[in-house]
Amino acid sequence: MDKAEKVMNLAMRRGFFWPAYEIYGGVAGTLVWGPYGVLVKNKVIDLWRRMFIYNHGFLEIQAPSIAPRIVFEASGHVDSFRDVMVTCESCGRKYRADTLLEEAGLEVSEALPLEEFDRLILENDVRCPSCGGRFSKSTYFITMFRTTIGPYSDAEGFLRPETAQNMFVEFRRVYEDFRRVFPIGIAQIGRGFRNEISPRQGPIRLREFDMMEIEFFFDPRDDSCPYFDDVRDEEINLLHEELLRSGGSEYETMTLDEAFSRGIIKNKYLGYFMVLAVKFLEKLGIPRENQRFREKLEGERAHYAVQTFDQEVKLDRWGWVEVSGHANRSDYDISRHIKFSGKELFAFRRLSSPKKVLVKEAIPRPRVIREAFGDKIGVIMRELSKYKPIEIYEALDKDGFIEVAGVRLGSEFFDVKVEEKVVEVEPFVPHVVEPSFGLDRIVYAVLEYAFREVGDRVVLSLPPIIAPVEAAVFPLTRDSGLVELAGMVYRDLKDSGYMVYYDDSDSIGRRYARVDEIGVPIAITIDYRSLEDDTVTVRDRDSWRQYRIKRIDVKTFIDLVLSGSGFVEAAESMGLEPL
Amino acid sequence: MDKAEKVMNLAMRRGFFWPAYEIYGGVAGTLVWGPYGVLVKNKVIDLWRRMFIYNHGFLEIQAPSIAPRIVFEASGHVDSFRDVMVTCESCGRKYRADTLLEEAGLEVSEALPLEEFDRLILENDVRCPSCGGRFSKSTYFITMFRTTIGPYSDAEGFLRPETAQNMFVEFRRVYEDFRRVFPIGIAQIGRGFRNEISPRQGPIRLREFDMMEIEFFFDPRDDSCPYFDDVRDEEINLLHEELLRSGGSEYETMTLDEAFSRGIIKNKYLGYFMVLAVKFLEKLGIPRENQRFREKLEGERAHYAVQTFDQEVKLDRWGWVEVSGHANRSDYDISRHIKFSGKELFAFRRLSSPKKVLVKEAIPRPRVIREAFGDKIGVIMRELSKYKPIEIYEALDKDGFIEVAGVRLGSEFFDVKVEEKVVEVEPFVPHVVEPSFGLDRIVYAVLEYAFREVGDRVVLSLPPIIAPVEAAVFPLTRDSGLVELAGMVYRDLKDSGYMVYYDDSDSIGRRYARVDEIGVPIAITIDYRSLEDDTVTVRDRDSWRQYRIKRIDVKTFIDLVLSGSGFVEAAESMGLEPL
Repeated sequence: MDKAEKVMNLAMRRGFFWPAYEIYGGVAGTLVWGPYGVLVKNKVIDLWRRMFIYNHGFLEIQAPSIAPRIVFEASGHVDSFRDVMVTCESCGRKYRADTLLEEAGLEVSEALPLEEFDRLILENDVRCPSCGGRFSKSTYFITMFRTTIGPYSDAEGFLRPETAQNMFVEFRRVYEDFRRVFPIGIAQIGRGFRNEISPRQGPIRLREFDMMEIEFFFDPRDDSCPYFDDVRDEEINLLHEELLRSGGSEYETMTLDEAFSRGIIKNKYLGYFMVLAVKFLEKLGIPRENQRFREKLEGERAHYAVQTFDQEVKLDRWGWVEVSGHANRSDYDISRHIKFSGKELFAFRRLSSPKKVLVKEAIPRPRVIREAFGDKIGVIMRELSKYKPIEIYEALDKDGFIEVAGVRLGSEFFDVKVEEKVVEVEPFVPHVVEPSFGLDRIVYAVLEYAFREVGDRVVLSLPPIIAPVEAAVFPLTRDSGLVELAGMVYRDLKDSGYMVYYDDSDSIGRRYARVDEIGVPIAITIDYRSLEDDTVTVRDRDSWRQYRIKRIDVKTFIDLVLSGSGFVEAAESMGLEPL
Repeated sequence: MDKAEKVMNLAMRRGFFWPAYEIYGGVAGTLVWGPYGVLVKNKVIDLWRRMFIYNHGFLEIQAPSIAPRIVFEASGHVDSFRDVMVTCESCGRKYRADTLLEEAGLEVSEALPLEEFDRLILENDVRCPSCGGRFSKSTYFITMFRTTIGPYSDAEGFLRPETAQNMFVEFRRVYEDFRRVFPIGIAQIGRGFRNEISPRQGPIRLREFDMMEIEFFFDPRDDSCPYFDDVRDEEINLLHEELLRSGGSEYETMTLDEAFSRGIIKNKYLGYFMVLAVKFLEKLGIPRENQRFREKLEGERAHYAVQTFDQEVKLDRWGWVEVSGHANRSDYDISRHIKFSGKELFAFRRLSSPKKVLVKEAIPRPRVIREAFGDKIGVIMRELSKYKPIEIYEALDKDGFIEVAGVRLGSEFFDVKVEEKVVEVEPFVPHVVEPSFGLDRIVYAVLEYAFREVGDRVVLSLPPIIAPVEAAVFPLTRDSGLVELAGMVYRDLKDSGYMVYYDDSDSIGRRYARVDEIGVPIAITIDYRSLEDDTVTVRDRDSWRQYRIKRIDVKTFIDLVLSGSGFVEAAESMGLEPL
C-alpha cells in the first residue's frame, strides 16, 4: 500500500473525504469533503484570506459559476479549453489522447495538431487499455460543462473552469465602487468545474473543485510592487525555462532578488506572490524543499499568459503536482472583454501634466421629448441617464441618432455643449498578475505531509492552526465525578469558541489513538487528582508527552500551541510539571 | 423610489451586490456579491455555523453540486421539480403560467393539471405582457440545469436545486465514520441552482444562490428532542393550516409548547429548529413581529414533505418572502435512495432485549481461488473484502454465485459458517427534519432592515457582529503627526484580526458619512489632543454621539460593542467622557 492509499484510507474511515455518490457506484472525479475535511479546508481558507486578501486590503467577490457563452468566447476558452480525445472503435470508451501517449512513454505537447496525435497513436500501436481495440481519429472535446440558461435553447451557458473571468467581467464595477483605488487586487474563493474526459487520480484530478484566486490589476508602466522589498531575500526553488531547455529536471534555489535580476521572474508582483505562496504552504506543513516552481514553456502555457510558473509539491504517488499557478496574463483578458462587450473597461493614470481637451456633450431637452413622446418621457429619461452626455454626443455624431426604450432620438432632442476641459488622467488597459490556488489538492497534500505511522498506529501531525479539532477532553474513567468535571471543561472550551471533542468510551489509550488519527494537537484528561487540586493533564499528539496543568491555565496553553509555539516548548515556557 | 430600489442602489454603489454580467447586458436571476457583501455574508454564515452546527455537534460536509441523473430520479426531482410554462405564439417569449395568472389576480396551485392552466388562461384572456400575443398550450419545464458529465452523451447530470440530496446520498458514510452516533445532523453550506423560466425579482429570485441546510436524521419511535425544553416558552408567529383554511391571513402568536400541544407543529425537532430560526434572524436585526411561519398546505408542499412551514420575513416591495423552509421529510428520501441504489441505508436502534438469530456466512477459500485464477487472486480478494460474509452468503443463496472482478465464483470457493448470534440492534429507515436557509435572501433582508435615511443621508444600522468592517480609523486632518498615529492605530487593530478601514481624504464629515453607509459601527478619530494625551475619539454610527477614550482601551471597547452591548451602553459602562 503506498502512502496515497494509506492517506485515502484514513480519509475515508475518519471522515476527511471520500469518493462522491458511492451508493450509486460513484462518479469519477468527484469528491465529498467530510466533517473533519471541511474543518481543515475552512481553516486553510481562513489562513489564505489573512495572508493574501486582508493583508493587502484586496477585495473579495462571489459571483455566479454559470456564465453565458459570450464570456468564454471573449476569454478564449470556447476555442482553446479543450482536450484531444479518441474513441475506441470496439468498445466505445473515450480517452485523452495525450494521457494514452504518455502511458506509452511519449511526452507530447497538447498543442500538437490532431493529425500528429493520430500519427503517433498509429505508429506506436496505442490500443484501448480496456479492450485492446483500435482508436478512431482524434477530435477536440471542450472540457467545460455546458448547459442552457432559462427555457430558450439558444441561451447556452458554461460552468466556469476557473473563477478568474468573474473578476475581469466585474472589474469596472469594483474599480468604480471603490473610488478607483489602483492597483487593485480582486479575489474570489469558489468552485470551478472541468468536464474531464476520464479522471483517474482521486483527489488530484477533480471535475468539481474549489479555487482561491486573485486577479491583481496593475499599470504596466509601474510594476514596482511595494511588497517586493519585504521578501527579496527569500529563497525559492525554480525549475525555470533555461534549466528546462538544457534538459534539467532539478530545481535551482535562489533568492527572489536574484531570480528577478537574472530575468527569470519577469514581473515583481508575480515574484512577490510566488514567495507568499511558498510561505503559505510552509505554514500548512509542506517543507520548502518539497516545493518548486516549474516554468511553463511556450506551447504549454495557457493561451492568455505571457509568463507562468506552476507551484508544485512533491507527492508520494503522483510526483510533482501543481497546487497553484502564477501567471502574468498581461492585458489579454481585459482587452478581450473590451472587444466583446464594447464597454470601456479602463483604469486611469494621472498625467504628469494636465492637458486641455475639447469636450462635446449632448444634453437631453425634456420639453421637446415630452412633446414628441408624452408619458413615455419617464422611461426615456431613465434610459438616457445610463449614458454620459459625451457618449450621447458620440452616438449622434456617428449614427445621427441614439436609440433608447425603443425610440430613435435625433439631434433635435438635445442641446450640444462644447467645452474646453482640463484632463488630469488618461485611460489605459490594466495588466493582470494572477496567483491561483487549487484548494482540494492543497488540502490533500497537507494531509499527506501530516500523515505519520508510529508502529501500527497513525498520527496526523497537522500544524495546530489547521487541525480540525483543537482539543479533546477525556475523563480518565466513567466515574461520575470525573465525567462531571470533564463536562465542565468541555463546555467551557466550547463556549469560548474552540472546536472540542469529548469522549468517555473505551480505554484512555484507544481514545488517545482515535484523536491522534484526526490530528487533535492537545488531549486534556481529567483524572482523580483533578478532583483534589483542580489540575488536569495535557498530552502532546506528536511526542505523546504529558504535563500537568492548572485547569484555569488550559485556555492560555491552547492559545500558545495554536499560535505555533510547539507543544513541548509551550509546556516548558509555562513551567508545567511533566508526568 | 421604494425601499427595495434604495437598498439596491446603495448595494450597487457601495459594493454590496449588483446584477452579474452587466457589461454583457446581464443575465436575469444572477448576482455578484461585492466586497462588503461578501464580508456580511461570511459573518452571517459564521453565526449560523455557531448556532446551528457547532452548538449541537452536527457534522458539516461539502459535496459536488453536479449529480448524476439517478440521484434526482430517486429524489423525485426529475418528475416533479418543474414549472408550468407557456410560450407566446407571436413573439416566442416564455413565461411561468402561474405567475401570469397571479398577475391577472388569480391564485392558482402549482399542482393543477396542464389543461386547467390552459382553460384559465383562455377564459381570463391572459395575453403576453410583452407583445399582447396569445399563448401556446402549457408544457412542463424542468427547472434544474441539465448538463453532461464527461464525454458520453448519455451521462446526463443536473446541478443540484438544493444541497439536501448530498446529505441523503452520503448519509451512510457519515453515519459509519462517526461510529453510528444517532440521532445525527448533517449540514451543508453551498450553492444551489434553479433554472427559473424568467426571474424578475432582483436578489429575491436567483438562478444561483447559497443555501445553509441541515438534514437531521432521527428515529421515528423517539422524537423526544433533547433541546425542546430549552425553548418551549419562546413565542412564534404562526399562519397555520387551521387559520389558512378559515381564510385567515394574520398570524397567531403562541409559545412553541402551545403549538406542539395543539398539534399545529407535529414534530418537536421541527419546532425546535423553527424557534432557533427566529432567534437567528433576530440576531441579524429582523424583529420578531416581522417574521412569521406560513404552513404549506397539501398540494403546495414539496413532494417529499409531510409537514412544512416557510419562515417568511416582511419586505418592503415583495411583502412576505420565504427565507427558510422547515420540512418534515419523513423517511421519503432515504427510502427512495434505498430503492434506487439497492443499498442498505439504515440506522440501528438498540433492542429492548437482545434476540438470538441464525447467521449464515460465506468465507472465501484463498487456496481454491488461487488454484482457479492464479495471480488474479489479489484483485478478487480485494473486491470480495467489500462485501460482508453474510452478503456473500446471500448472493450465493440467491444466484448460486457472486461476481467480482469479472469472474463468477460459485459456492465451491467458500466455506459456509452457520452461527447463532445474539443481536442487540435492529435496522430502521431514519426519518428527517430539515431546516433550510436561503442565504442571499437573508442577507438582502438584513440590508433592508438595516437601511435608514437620516435627512439626505443613508445609515446602514447593521448589528455590529455582521458589520462588514468593524472600525474605521481617521486622522482628523492630513497633518503628518496625526496620519502617523492613525496609521499605528490602524495597523495595531488589523494585526489583532479586526476588519478596519482607513481614510484620510476629504472632510471628516464626509468620511463619517461614507462609513455610515457601509455600516461601520465605530469610527475612531485621531485629533490634536491625541498627540498630547494618547486618547482618541470614538463615534457611534447610529446616534452619532462621540466619546473620548484612551488609545489602550480601544480594543476592549470594540469587543464590547461587537458582543452586542450597544455603543452608548458600552461607552457608559466604561465611563468614557462624552464629547
